[in-house]
Amino acid sequence: MQIAILLFDGITALDAIGPYEALWRVEGYQVEFVAPEVGLKRTRHGLGLQAERALAELPAPEVIVIPGGAGVEAQLGDPRVTDWIRRAHQTTRWTTSVCTGALLLGAAGILEGRRATTHWLSHARLADYGAEPVGARVVEDGKVMTAAGVSAGIDLGLTLVSRLAGPRAAQAAQLSMEYDPEPPFGTGSPRRAPRELVALVRARAAAGQRPAPDDGDGAVSA
Amino acid sequence: MQIAILLFDGITALDAIGPYEALWRVEGYQVEFVAPEVGLKRTRHGLGLQAERALAELPAPEVIVIPGGAGVEAQLGDPRVTDWIRRAHQTTRWTTSVCTGALLLGAAGILEGRRATTHWLSHARLADYGAEPVGARVVEDGKVMTAAGVSAGIDLGLTLVSRLAGPRAAQAAQLSMEYDPEPPFGTGSPRRAPRELVALVRARAAAGQRPAPDDGDGAVSA
Repeated sequence: MQIAILLFDGITALDAIGPYEALWRVEGYQVEFVAPEVGLKRTRHGLGLQAERALAELPAPEVIVIPGGAGVEAQLGDPRVTDWIRRAHQTTRWTTSVCTGALLLGAAGILEGRRATTHWLSHARLADYGAEPVGARVVEDGKVMTAAGVSAGIDLGLTLVSRLAGPRAAQAAQLSMEYDPEPPFGTGSPRRAPRELVALVRARAAAGQRPAPDDGDGAVSA
Repeated sequence: MQIAILLFDGITALDAIGPYEALWRVEGYQVEFVAPEVGLKRTRHGLGLQAERALAELPAPEVIVIPGGAGVEAQLGDPRVTDWIRRAHQTTRWTTSVCTGALLLGAAGILEGRRATTHWLSHARLADYGAEPVGARVVEDGKVMTAAGVSAGIDLGLTLVSRLAGPRAAQAAQLSMEYDPEPPFGTGSPRRAPRELVALVRARAAAGQRPAPDDGDGAVSA
């Protein structure tokens, strides 16, 4: 089983690592990190991830995983990326995305008429690509599987292992990852978080800023 | 706020990326990936993560995060690593580990007499370092915070943000990561998984193998 995970500058690391951590845990599964050119791709905050293979080396993986992050915007205009996604999709068993990686599937024409999800801050943009935005953590439509923001890639990864290798293998991967989450707060979804917290995160993201510590400017009021 | 996350060959990627993904989401927080020598550190399954700074360049970060993975065994005998952890701990605000990274805290002498946790497969080994093994997802004892296996690093990361920057900043980070988990199975903990699944994962890990797909050898029976 050959699985390709796309990397690019400005990626959100967990979008890629969540699915990776589930998928490599099946014997015989080979995960490759790919980009238009081999080399280090960097998050905006200090981490370099190595793309070991060029897209042209892997024209037809059985599974593709397209992560998101602020860097997606630049990728939307790079035909090397969108053409590769479009062509690979013709022969994949599963075409998948995490977070705003869904916008790249959209730009490759894959979401037209499909149900899909993405990070809650970008949900409305799915309609730009003819998709029907669905408020769910993992959405399957045919062989296209999309996940909500960032950490939802773990749920997608385990669901994908279940579809590819069977529920027993996925249950073993989940146990091996000790994925029995205990989120410290109830604020992981905009449907459950207080309205002013949602407004704060939205405003800071729009300004290209991160929330400050509680005793810092801009943290405790939206 | 300077935060150092240790990298090494044979690391489990999510152990490092889970905390990273929570910690960078606070304005002003600077996360550095460190190793004895600058360069790419590789998981056993196809991923390279770049250590941008040498340990000697960061003798006194405010927070250290020690991830786990199969490569921990080699690090236990590397005094460059254990000496750095021991010295850094003298001035940290928080000394933390994820998964079998706790064994490295132990080898640095930090867990003596402390309550701590690690990956369920290695829980009994904590006693080798004078620690009291605790069956919890995140354990705090003084300024030492340890997490259970792999995915527990996300819960540790958000808890750490809460302690460092306040609950509001942590709630914002959790919303930004859309951390509202929906594990596809109830098998994330050995306390909840079927006994034969626990035995399967334990046996395959002991053999240095991964569980096979459900139609493959060794998958459906322990």
